[in-house]
Amino acid sequence: MDLTEHPLHSEIMAAGDLLTVKRDLVSLPNGNTSYREYVAHPGAVVVVPMLSNGHVVLERQFRYPLRQVFVELPAGKIDPNEETLQTGKRELLEETGYTARQWVKLGRQHPCIGYSDEVIHIYLATDLQLGSHRRDEDESLEVFDVSFADCLSMIVQGEITDSKTITAIFLAEKYLQANGGN
Amino acid sequence: MDLTEHPLHSEIMAAGDLLTVKRDLVSLPNGNTSYREYVAHPGAVVVVPMLSNGHVVLERQFRYPLRQVFVELPAGKIDPNEETLQTGKRELLEETGYTARQWVKLGRQHPCIGYSDEVIHIYLATDLQLGSHRRDEDESLEVFDVSFADCLSMIVQGEITDSKTITAIFLAEKYLQANGGN
Repeated sequence: MDLTEHPLHSEIMAAGDLLTVKRDLVSLPNGNTSYREYVAHPGAVVVVPMLSNGHVVLERQFRYPLRQVFVELPAGKIDPNEETLQTGKRELLEETGYTARQWVKLGRQHPCIGYSDEVIHIYLATDLQLGSHRRDEDESLEVFDVSFADCLSMIVQGEITDSKTITAIFLAEKYLQANGGN
Repeated sequence: MDLTEHPLHSEIMAAGDLLTVKRDLVSLPNGNTSYREYVAHPGAVVVVPMLSNGHVVLERQFRYPLRQVFVELPAGKIDPNEETLQTGKRELLEETGYTARQWVKLGRQHPCIGYSDEVIHIYLATDLQLGSHRRDEDESLEVFDVSFADCLSMIVQGEITDSKTITAIFLAEKYLQANGGN
């Protein structure tokens, strides 16, 4: 069965400082037409930073759309022409102050396939060294670390609900199981 | 540390058929102000439907924002005044034709905390019975099932990258481990 929808026309529905929203007219597999509205996103990188004692570095950050503080992994948007590994290194340093000597690509995830074209690349960062963070003046967050087991427990208990974080921890757990870590 | 951002002013940046996008002026913890742009979403439900042989029911669906077919769990938006369990039952039936006698709430996830207020409630559905689906005429998707182990493998191999699906399977795996299933 061919499930493909083909674009007929595309327009910018909204162009803000942060978000660009598109509205495309598409032809459906059954011959009908419909509109598709979605956020156009540059992509992002999420990092699982793991200390030598097996602890995971996490952040507490206020997320305005949901008006609450979330526990999440370091992450950020890809700058223009930036390699994803470089984004991971930059965001880890900026947000937490850590640099890492070992980087492993764990995969990628799509957070919001219904209405965003965002892709999030996932890295495991180990052999960490703490320097000083380079957060923007307007970026307020707290950095802390927990054991990997406690991190898994926080997900099961509903204390971590951020999908990018859960997905990255899932892949890190499988990677560590397959490679004899933790 | 108080991380809270307080709304000063809110406006509708875009109102489409599918998406409503807001732009709020907020005061930051450091006293500065900034804008926050985000999708206002009614919330959704994702279902892990598990057959008596331990197989998971999945779908292949074309997702226009990323122009590709995704493997994902049945899911859909909450209708106005609808209980989340009812959304799960409705979407499972509409998309796959299955009804389930047993429903367990596994938790909830936030797919896109940076620019959407969407919450996705997660259910495990077992004791399934197959009827006939009630898909909209314009809704093209394929339904299939794989063993739970194969589903985990598809995530690790990068064949499943949809975050809501990975997150729900993660929680289902932990639930089944804790409750002696699979």
